[in-house]
Amino acid sequence: MGSIADWEAAKLILLGVPMDCTTSFRPGARFGPSKVREVSDGLEEYSFYLDRSLTDVAYYDAGDVPVVFGDVDTTLALIKRVITELVSLEKVPLLIGGEHLVSLPAIQALADQHGKLTVLHFDAHADLRDEYLGQRLSHATVMRRVTERIGPRNLYQFGIRSGTEKEFGFGYEHTRFYPDAVLEPLRDCLAELGQEPVYVTIDIDVVDPAFAPGTGAPEPVGCTSREIMEVVHLLGCLNVVGLDIVELSPSLDYGDTTAILVAKLVREALLSIRF
Amino acid sequence: MGSIADWEAAKLILLGVPMDCTTSFRPGARFGPSKVREVSDGLEEYSFYLDRSLTDVAYYDAGDVPVVFGDVDTTLALIKRVITELVSLEKVPLLIGGEHLVSLPAIQALADQHGKLTVLHFDAHADLRDEYLGQRLSHATVMRRVTERIGPRNLYQFGIRSGTEKEFGFGYEHTRFYPDAVLEPLRDCLAELGQEPVYVTIDIDVVDPAFAPGTGAPEPVGCTSREIMEVVHLLGCLNVVGLDIVELSPSLDYGDTTAILVAKLVREALLSIRF
Amino acid sequence: MGSIADWEAAKLILLGVPMDCTTSFRPGARFGPSKVREVSDGLEEYSFYLDRSLTDVAYYDAGDVPVVFGDVDTTLALIKRVITELVSLEKVPLLIGGEHLVSLPAIQALADQHGKLTVLHFDAHADLRDEYLGQRLSHATVMRRVTERIGPRNLYQFGIRSGTEKEFGFGYEHTRFYPDAVLEPLRDCLAELGQEPVYVTIDIDVVDPAFAPGTGAPEPVGCTSREIMEVVHLLGCLNVVGLDIVELSPSLDYGDTTAILVAKLVREALLSIRF
Amino acid sequence: MGSIADWEAAKLILLGVPMDCTTSFRPGARFGPSKVREVSDGLEEYSFYLDRSLTDVAYYDAGDVPVVFGDVDTTLALIKRVITELVSLEKVPLLIGGEHLVSLPAIQALADQHGKLTVLHFDAHADLRDEYLGQRLSHATVMRRVTERIGPRNLYQFGIRSGTEKEFGFGYEHTRFYPDAVLEPLRDCLAELGQEPVYVTIDIDVVDPAFAPGTGAPEPVGCTSREIMEVVHLLGCLNVVGLDIVELSPSLDYGDTTAILVAKLVREALLSIRF
Amino acid sequence: MGSIADWEAAKLILLGVPMDCTTSFRPGARFGPSKVREVSDGLEEYSFYLDRSLTDVAYYDAGDVPVVFGDVDTTLALIKRVITELVSLEKVPLLIGGEHLVSLPAIQALADQHGKLTVLHFDAHADLRDEYLGQRLSHATVMRRVTERIGPRNLYQFGIRSGTEKEFGFGYEHTRFYPDAVLEPLRDCLAELGQEPVYVTIDIDVVDPAFAPGTGAPEPVGCTSREIMEVVHLLGCLNVVGLDIVELSPSLDYGDTTAILVAKLVREALLSIRF
Amino acid sequence: MGSIADWEAAKLILLGVPMDCTTSFRPGARFGPSKVREVSDGLEEYSFYLDRSLTDVAYYDAGDVPVVFGDVDTTLALIKRVITELVSLEKVPLLIGGEHLVSLPAIQALADQHGKLTVLHFDAHADLRDEYLGQRLSHATVMRRVTERIGPRNLYQFGIRSGTEKEFGFGYEHTRFYPDAVLEPLRDCLAELGQEPVYVTIDIDVVDPAFAPGTGAPEPVGCTSREIMEVVHLLGCLNVVGLDIVELSPSLDYGDTTAILVAKLVREALLSIRF
Repeated sequence: MGSIADWEAAKLILLGVPMDCTTSFRPGARFGPSKVREVSDGLEEYSFYLDRSLTDVAYYDAGDVPVVFGDVDTTLALIKRVITELVSLEKVPLLIGGEHLVSLPAIQALADQHGKLTVLHFDAHADLRDEYLGQRLSHATVMRRVTERIGPRNLYQFGIRSGTEKEFGFGYEHTRFYPDAVLEPLRDCLAELGQEPVYVTIDIDVVDPAFAPGTGAPEPVGCTSREIMEVVHLLGCLNVVGLDIVELSPSLDYGDTTAILVAKLVREALLSIRF
Repeated sequence: MGSIADWEAAKLILLGVPMDCTTSFRPGARFGPSKVREVSDGLEEYSFYLDRSLTDVAYYDAGDVPVVFGDVDTTLALIKRVITELVSLEKVPLLIGGEHLVSLPAIQALADQHGKLTVLHFDAHADLRDEYLGQRLSHATVMRRVTERIGPRNLYQFGIRSGTEKEFGFGYEHTRFYPDAVLEPLRDCLAELGQEPVYVTIDIDVVDPAFAPGTGAPEPVGCTSREIMEVVHLLGCLNVVGLDIVELSPSLDYGDTTAILVAKLVREALLSIRF
Repeated sequence: MGSIADWEAAKLILLGVPMDCTTSFRPGARFGPSKVREVSDGLEEYSFYLDRSLTDVAYYDAGDVPVVFGDVDTTLALIKRVITELVSLEKVPLLIGGEHLVSLPAIQALADQHGKLTVLHFDAHADLRDEYLGQRLSHATVMRRVTERIGPRNLYQFGIRSGTEKEFGFGYEHTRFYPDAVLEPLRDCLAELGQEPVYVTIDIDVVDPAFAPGTGAPEPVGCTSREIMEVVHLLGCLNVVGLDIVELSPSLDYGDTTAILVAKLVREALLSIRF
Repeated sequence: MGSIADWEAAKLILLGVPMDCTTSFRPGARFGPSKVREVSDGLEEYSFYLDRSLTDVAYYDAGDVPVVFGDVDTTLALIKRVITELVSLEKVPLLIGGEHLVSLPAIQALADQHGKLTVLHFDAHADLRDEYLGQRLSHATVMRRVTERIGPRNLYQFGIRSGTEKEFGFGYEHTRFYPDAVLEPLRDCLAELGQEPVYVTIDIDVVDPAFAPGTGAPEPVGCTSREIMEVVHLLGCLNVVGLDIVELSPSLDYGDTTAILVAKLVREALLSIRF
Repeated sequence: MGSIADWEAAKLILLGVPMDCTTSFRPGARFGPSKVREVSDGLEEYSFYLDRSLTDVAYYDAGDVPVVFGDVDTTLALIKRVITELVSLEKVPLLIGGEHLVSLPAIQALADQHGKLTVLHFDAHADLRDEYLGQRLSHATVMRRVTERIGPRNLYQFGIRSGTEKEFGFGYEHTRFYPDAVLEPLRDCLAELGQEPVYVTIDIDVVDPAFAPGTGAPEPVGCTSREIMEVVHLLGCLNVVGLDIVELSPSLDYGDTTAILVAKLVREALLSIRF
Repeated sequence: MGSIADWEAAKLILLGVPMDCTTSFRPGARFGPSKVREVSDGLEEYSFYLDRSLTDVAYYDAGDVPVVFGDVDTTLALIKRVITELVSLEKVPLLIGGEHLVSLPAIQALADQHGKLTVLHFDAHADLRDEYLGQRLSHATVMRRVTERIGPRNLYQFGIRSGTEKEFGFGYEHTRFYPDAVLEPLRDCLAELGQEPVYVTIDIDVVDPAFAPGTGAPEPVGCTSREIMEVVHLLGCLNVVGLDIVELSPSLDYGDTTAILVAKLVREALLSIRF
C-alpha cells in the first residue's frame, strides 16, 4: 500500500513486530505483520470515509523489527532501541504485532522522549495481572507494567470484558477504566485528552469474534468492526505520537477477514493521524 | 471452572447430555459437553457483568449422563431418571446438550415435581411438528411434545424464525409465540412470569450464525451474542428450576467461538440464577 | 424449493449463471448456483416475515445457463439471448451468479425490452472502473458498462464502501450514489422510483463478512444480514422486472452460512416481487 | 455413473445405506452414499485396468434404504427386508455405507437365501467384541454377530491391525484371521474359496489414512489404495453374491480423496464381479 | 531460491504461468506460481540427492507471464511469444503452471525452433480428447493438440490412469502410451530418446493424492513422490530443452505439502538438467 | 492408556515437554503432549505386532515438565533437572515434544549419568548448524550441540534428506550419517551398537508428510509410517536408556492422523524397550 520511497520525508513509520514469545495459548501472532502486508495488496488506497488517499500521506514501511525467538528480554530491548531512534528523528511509529507485549518497549521509548505520556488501551482483556505463569513480562501483564511506567491514571482502558476479579478491582480503582464499550467512552474523553501526547494500543480481540475471528484468545460479545473503525477516525482529534495494533493471528483467521480488517484500520490510522 | 467438590452442599448441578440420536442432518452435538468443559479452562471465573465469581457459587459438575447411541427411548428414560433424582434432592439442573430432544425428559421430570411448569424456549426453529421423518420423538418435534405435557399456554417461544406454515399457525394460536426477537418480548413477560417455576431451554441456533456458527442447522438473521447474554442475565429475576443449552456442534464451530459463547452463557447462568 | 413443474404458468424464472471468467482473485463463484440449490433443500418454503409460502408462487427453476469457460464474449452473448427470450415471454428472470459481470447482459436484454430501465445496485465495491487489468468487460467495470447502456442517472448504488478515488468521484458526480448504508437510502428513494421498471443486482459482499464470509473479495464493515433481507422485502413496493444475486463463492464460505443466506434472500425475493 | 434405466434387466443393484446410529466417535458415515454419488460425476466410466466400461454392465442405482435415526432395530429390519427382496429376484446387492453394522442384515438376508455363506472382511479393526458400550449391536461387534450367523470358520478377516487382546485371541482361534496384510493372504485363499457364494465387506479404514483419511476411526499403517484396488480386481475370480463398502465419512475427508477412492472401488467392483 | 541476478548469463529461465481459464472444475491453478515461490523460501538450496546447490546453477526467475483472464487465445499467444523469445536467446524455459493448457504454446514455440521435438508427458489423465465441453483448447484436450503439432509418435505418455475408452484407444494406437507406471517405462525409453531435444510436462496429479493433494482433479492410485523425483533425476541423461510442472492448486493443498513437493521438483530439475 | 498408579514400581516414565520457544516457522509443537494423551484414549492397549499389552508394562505418566515460554535457558535447565532426577532413580524417560531442542537437556542428563552415550537420531533435517538466526540453542542446531557433548562419532543419523551443504559435509565427515533411509541402515548398525546405552530421538518429520502431515517443517519424500514403526520394534534389541518423539504440531495435523501415529509409536516403544 503506497509507502513512499523517501525515508527522510516520511513522518509516519510502519513497523512490523513479529513476536509471540510469551503467548501461552495458540501462538501465531508472529505472522501478523506479513499477512497484513499481503492482504493490503487487495485494499484500495483511497478511503471514502475520510476522502483521502494513502498517496497523500508521507509514510514509510520500514519492514520488521528482528525478533530473537526464545529471548524475550533481548527482543524487547531491540524494539525499544528501534523506537527510540525513530522517535529521536521525530517520526511517529505505527506498529503491527505480534503479541501485546510489544507495546511495552514502544511506550517506554515514547515516555522517555515525551516525559509525560497517556496510553489509550482497547482490548477484551484487562492485561493487568502482576504476573502470569510466573512471569512478570507477558501479554497478560503488559498493561500493569505500563501503569508502572506512566502512572495508572494515564492509562485509559476501553472495551475490557474479561479478567480476574483482582484485575477489574485494580482497573476500577487505579486506571481510567471503561469496561465493555469503546466508542462512547472515548468520545467522552476527547476533551479531557486534549492535545497531550497519546499512545494508542489496539488489541484486535477487542472486536467481537464474529468480525475478527483471527486472534488467539477470542472473547464473545465485543464491539463491532464499525465501532473500532470509528474509534480510529476519532484519533484525528488527538495528538497521537505512536500506535500499535496487536494479536492478529493469521492461522486462526477465517478467509483473511481479520487481517483485512487490521489492514483497513492501519490505512484509516495512516489517514487519520495528524502530524 | 471452579466446580466445588462438595456434592451435598451444591445447589446447582451441571450435567452434560451428549446425545444426538435423532439429528437428521450434520450430527455432532454429542461433543458439545466435552468441548464446553475444555474451553471453559480458558475462561475467567469472574463476570464483570454481574460482579460475581464462580467461586462464590455452590455448583457441582456431575459429568455426563450416559447415552445409549441408537436407542432413543432408553436414553430419554435414563435422563429423566437422573433429573428426577436431582430434583428430589432440591437441586437445580443445568444441562449442556446434546440435541434438543434432551429437554423433554428434563421438563417431564420437573413438571412431575413442581406440578405446574412454565417453559421458556429460545430457538431459531419452532420445533412444533407433530412428527418428523416418521418419528414423534425428534429434535424437530420436541416442543410439540412439551406442549402436550405442560399445556401450550405454558410454553413461551422466543426468537423463532423458521418453521412450516403449520408450525407457525400452531404457535400463533396455541403457545405464547414471539417470533424473531428475544430480548424485548422476554422483558415484557417478566411481570407475568412472576415467581412461577420456569424451565429455560436455549437452542444456541437462536443466535445469528455470525456469532454462533457451531450448530447443525444455522439459520441466518438471528439475535446477537450480546442479546442472548442479556437474556441470561434477566433469568435472575425469575424462579428458574432448570435450564439447558443445546445444539452446540463443535466440529462445525469456527475457532471454538460458539463453544466459548456457550461456556460463557453457562457461567452467566450459574451466576444469575437465584436459589 | 417448491419450483412448480409448469413452465408456461410460471412468471418468475430462476436461472443459475455459473460464470467466473474474469475473476482476478480467488475464483469459485461458478459453484454458487449449485450450492444455493443444495442448501435450499434444508430451507423451509414458508416465510413468516411475509406470511407466504413458495407453494403460493408460480415460479420455475430453469437450471443453469451454459458457460463457455475461457470465452467471455460468447458467454455474455449466450446469457443475453436467454434473458431476451424469457423477457419476450413476459417472464421475470431471477439470476443466481456467478460473478458480477453476469448482470450486464441481463440488464442489456431488459433495457432493450423496456426502453427505459432503472438499476438498483447493492455492493461493497463501486465496480465503476473504465477498465481493469486491461479489460473493459470485468467484474470491476460492470457498473460502468451499465451506465453506458442505461445512463448514469438511472443507476442507484447502495452500500458502496470500497473503490478508487476516481470511482467515488464518478459515482458522486454521475450516478445516484449512496455509499456505506443500504436500507435508509433505499427507503428514501422508494417514492422517486415509483412504478418504473427496475432491475436489482445484489453483490452478496455488500453484507458484512461476519454474516457473509463466502465471497471472493470480502470487505469489512458492511450491512447486516437483517438489513439486506429488509431491502429485499422493500422490493414488494417496486416494479421489479429482473433481479440477480451474485458473487457467492461456496469454497470460501463457512458452514454454508452465506449460501443459506443467499437461498433465503432468493426465497424472500420470490415471495416479495409482485407480478 | 451410467446406471441403466431398466430395473428388470439389471443384475447388480447399487444401494446406499446412510446409517450411523451406533457410531460412538465422530459420526458422519450417513453422508457416505450421497457423497459417493456426487464425486462419481467426475469419474470416467471406463477402467483401463479392466478395459471395460460401466456402459457394458447391467447395473441399477436404487437410491438409499430409508434409515430411522435413533432406532437401530427398525433400521436393521428394514435393510434386511430390502436385501431379501433383491436377493429373491436374483439381484446382487452392492451397498455403500453408512456404518459397518449395515453389513449384518445384508449378510443375514444372503445367508438365508444361499444356505451357506462365506464372508470376506477387510478392516483395520477386528469388530469381534461381544458387546460394546453395553450394546450387542454395534459397529464394534458386527463381525462377532456375523460369526454367530454363518459360523466363525466361514469368516475371513484381512488387514486387521487394531483390537483388544481378546478380539485377536478370538480371531486367531476361531475365524480365518489374516492380520495386517490384505492382498497376499487373499491370493492364497482364492483356490480354497472356489465358487462358494461369498459376501465381501470392505471397511474403508483398512486402507492407510494417508490414502483414505475420510473415516471415523483412522488407524495408521494400513494397506495402500493400490492394494485395495487389486483386492477388488481379484473378486472377479470368485462367486460374489453381495458386497459393501462402509465407514466413509465425508466430513472427515480431505479434498474428497476418500470418496473418490470409494467411488472408484465401486466402479471396479461393478466391472469385476461376474454374474 | 538463489536465482542469479544476471539475466544474460542465465541459461535456465524460471517462468510462472498463472492461467486457469479453461478449468471446468475447482479452479485455482492460477495461484500455483506465487505459492511455489513462497514455500521455496523454506527450502534448502542444496540437494543431497545430486550433491549440488542452486548457487552453482545459472538460472534466473523471470516472474510471471501476464494472463488475460477470460481470453484464452490472447493468453496462449502471449505465452508463445515469450517462450519464442527465450528460445531464440538459447535459454531453456522452466514453467510453473497454471493449468495444463499452458504447455501447448510452449511446445509450439520449441517445436518451431528445433524442427523436431519429443514430448514426455506425466499425468493421471490422458488429455487426449478432441474437444471438451465444446472447446478444442482445454486442459482436457491439450495433448491431442500436441500430437497434431509434433506427431503422435513423438508424444510419450506416462502414468495415465484415467480417461475415456476413446482416449485410451487413441493412446494405445497412436502415442507412446505407458499407463499407470512412470519410472520403469521412462528408464526403458532413455536409450531410445538419446540426445533428441525433449520437452517435459508434469501434471502434478500424476502423483498419488496422498503425496500431492493440492490439485483440481485428484485421481487415486498414482505414483509416489519418490518416484516422480527419480523421474526428474533421470532428466539429467536427456537433452531437455524445456519443462513445465502444472496443475498445482494451492487452495486445495494440505499444509502446503504439494507446493513444497513442486518446489523441490523444480529445484531438482534446475540441478539435473544439463545445458 | 493404562499408566499404572504406582510411581515407585514404574520403570518407564512418560513425560510431556510442551516447549516450542525457538521454532522460527509455524509454532504449535507445544500442544503435542496433550494431543497425544487425548488421542491415546481411542487407541487399544494391545499391540498385535508384539502380542503384548500396556497392562503388562510398569510405566507411569508423570505429566508435563513446566515450560517458561520466552525463556529458553531456564526451560532447558528445568528439563535437565527433571531428567537427572529420573535417571538417578534408574527410570527410563520417554519424552513427547515439543520442539527438537528438548532432546538436548535429556541427552546431557543421560550422558552425565552413563558416562558414555550413543544417540540415534531419526529426522528429515540434519539439525547440525552451528548457529541459526544468531542462536546457538535452536531446533536447527540441536544435534551439533549433541555432538559437542557426546562426540560426533557417537551420533547416528538416519533419514536425513534436508540441510545445507555444510551440514551434509559435517555429517558425512564426522557423524555416522545415513541420509534418506531409516530401516536398512539401522538394521546394519544393530550389531555394532550392541548393548551400549543408547538414547533415541525421533523427529516425526522423518516420516513422509503423506503419513505425518502434522509437523512444522514437512519435507516430502520421507519414510513410511510402517518403516518408522519397524524402527521402534527394533529398539527391543538395544539397551535404550531414554527416548523422545518430537515436533508433532497438532494444529497442522489432518484428522489427528499424525497424533495417532505418535501415540501408536509411544505404545510400541513402551512395549518394545527392555528394562
